[in-house]
Amino acid sequence: MIRDWVELNMTPGIGPRAAAKLLERFGSAEAVYKATRAELEQLRLPPEAVDTIIARDLLPRAEAEIFAVKKLGGEILLLDDGVYPSPLREIYDPPIVLYVKGDWSDCLDRPCIGVVGSRRCSTYGQNAAIMLARDLAQRGVTVVSGFARGIDAAAHRGALEAGGRTVAILGTGIDEVYPRDHKKLAAEILERGGALVSQFPLGTPPVSENFPYRNRIISGLSLGVVVVEAAENSGSLITARLAMEQNREVFAVPGNITSRNSFGTNYLIKGAGAKLVQQWQDIAAELPPQVAATLLPPSLAEQKLGERKKDVSMSDRLSLVPEGLSPAEHLVFKLLTPDTPAHVDWLFDKSELPISELTAALLSLEIRELVRALPGRCFVRKL
Amino acid sequence: MIRDWVELNMTPGIGPRAAAKLLERFGSAEAVYKATRAELEQLRLPPEAVDTIIARDLLPRAEAEIFAVKKLGGEILLLDDGVYPSPLREIYDPPIVLYVKGDWSDCLDRPCIGVVGSRRCSTYGQNAAIMLARDLAQRGVTVVSGFARGIDAAAHRGALEAGGRTVAILGTGIDEVYPRDHKKLAAEILERGGALVSQFPLGTPPVSENFPYRNRIISGLSLGVVVVEAAENSGSLITARLAMEQNREVFAVPGNITSRNSFGTNYLIKGAGAKLVQQWQDIAAELPPQVAATLLPPSLAEQKLGERKKDVSMSDRLSLVPEGLSPAEHLVFKLLTPDTPAHVDWLFDKSELPISELTAALLSLEIRELVRALPGRCFVRKL
Repeated sequence: MIRDWVELNMTPGIGPRAAAKLLERFGSAEAVYKATRAELEQLRLPPEAVDTIIARDLLPRAEAEIFAVKKLGGEILLLDDGVYPSPLREIYDPPIVLYVKGDWSDCLDRPCIGVVGSRRCSTYGQNAAIMLARDLAQRGVTVVSGFARGIDAAAHRGALEAGGRTVAILGTGIDEVYPRDHKKLAAEILERGGALVSQFPLGTPPVSENFPYRNRIISGLSLGVVVVEAAENSGSLITARLAMEQNREVFAVPGNITSRNSFGTNYLIKGAGAKLVQQWQDIAAELPPQVAATLLPPSLAEQKLGERKKDVSMSDRLSLVPEGLSPAEHLVFKLLTPDTPAHVDWLFDKSELPISELTAALLSLEIRELVRALPGRCFVRKL
Repeated sequence: MIRDWVELNMTPGIGPRAAAKLLERFGSAEAVYKATRAELEQLRLPPEAVDTIIARDLLPRAEAEIFAVKKLGGEILLLDDGVYPSPLREIYDPPIVLYVKGDWSDCLDRPCIGVVGSRRCSTYGQNAAIMLARDLAQRGVTVVSGFARGIDAAAHRGALEAGGRTVAILGTGIDEVYPRDHKKLAAEILERGGALVSQFPLGTPPVSENFPYRNRIISGLSLGVVVVEAAENSGSLITARLAMEQNREVFAVPGNITSRNSFGTNYLIKGAGAKLVQQWQDIAAELPPQVAATLLPPSLAEQKLGERKKDVSMSDRLSLVPEGLSPAEHLVFKLLTPDTPAHVDWLFDKSELPISELTAALLSLEIRELVRALPGRCFVRKL
């Protein structure tokens, strides 16, 4: 029964951790309400929560809530209803109930990328967020963000600018718009085929404790999360780390080391294994091959699909030397093959070029995406 | 004989590649001049070069050069003279002769770090170069750079500001100052215990073909090279790649993705394995442990020396919980040990914290350098 889930989800003292414990023990919200006090007490829940569950104090509110959500034009998704977004269901302690509004199903069927960052951000950060969100949305990616001021809002707006889809994960109820001056943004997201999502009951006000839970949904729904700007103690750093815990790709946009707003993103790249993003392709290239193939231009996508497509016109491609190469680049390119890594010593001998010219040629070929540097100072042609 | 080396080094057509071939075949410059025409011709040198060597056309010029260098207050180092800088001797095709001026020996006895970048740079880049050079020089590092406008000049100036040592590698003869308006900078470098170094004969003008050779010396003399700013086709990218070929550490300072000047450095971090630098400690931490120990504050240096120092007061350090931790951080810190990696699942169970709080606590401990994240979502205490 929907109302049991909604009721459990609105019970004070039952956070995602406690909810996970209850579901692990009893299997469903329905079963939780059939449990005895003794059974509940074994789980070391807060005593008030046990009282509330046993007394079913919140049942009337839950029933009213279901009605109110319908009236708002929203829907309620349950962890075990079969339509609950599967990437989110697979995280540690997924929300047991999701309140959604708008075209959530179509949005979440597409590849989703979280784009997040500080509320207090620089113009640079805002522009970077708009650019990346626009470029991703243009190619059919759903941009997921947290509806906050600053980077989040820029990400939503960038996606809308491109005529793309965007999903706002709220830290409040879906009937609350916070911050207030984002009312128009919320309306636009819904009009343009986007969606609002929250795990919190209607009327939940913006309280800071709720924002980490919102962030967990952003990364949980996404294949990867891009942090655009984040100061040293930014919540976005926690989002990034949560995304890593969820085995999501984490990306960060670098910035000047003199900018406080870029401290966190530079740190993520330096110390936490986040991938540096200069442009949307850097994000696409790290996604699963099938997804990358739909986003990247054919040549890059084929590289990404790699083995599978190798048979297609390989001999053709091998015989072609790209145009506009310098004599040294031409010479080096001809020495390379796509199959056998060539060590730089061997290239040095064969090319008879001074090491600095050889290196310049290799670098130039690499930047033009014609060759790939492998570990151990070896090089191969790209296909 | 010094004059044989100097003569060979000034022979047109004998670049470092050909010189390396000659030395490999004959063992020394002296022996090259005892070789027969037939022996020289076997090496497929340019015919004019063979003529010049056989006729010893340049001997008078070489003899005059030795005298002139002395008069300038400079010295000439030879590849096999026993004082030639050993890290440089170990690169692929080291210069066979180095012209030096100033306190080169003392400079090169210290840990050397190359700090390089674009000639056309931004104010941000200049400031970053000054800051890093100053911070390194203050701690006894010799800052090596290429004496060009822009980042190079800022690096030299930063080192001087700190009262430290700096070595300028010239693409001209050591008697030429290029660019002209760097005359005062050159004088200051020499006055403050720094040095000028070049592989080119006196009077060599600034020709662009020579600059890659200069760059090879910068990285050859250094433990690592920091690229501060570099545009897409910057020579600094080639310096970085050469440094990698020479097995030197390569560092890059990130910058806004909207800045052309940071394209190259961001690219190095993203695609070429350069380490991101936010501050001088990021450079020091990657140097050999003995060097890092002399630069870093004791606590960090001890981490770096690791095993060797573990016996020192370990039990003391284990029992101490750092001050100023939040309750969640305290709880997580107490669960961690320095010896056994704790998986995040285990921490999740033991701490009973919601995953987002646990993650926030771990991140905060990590940023405070109290814990270290290991691959596979495990954590240990740092010592």
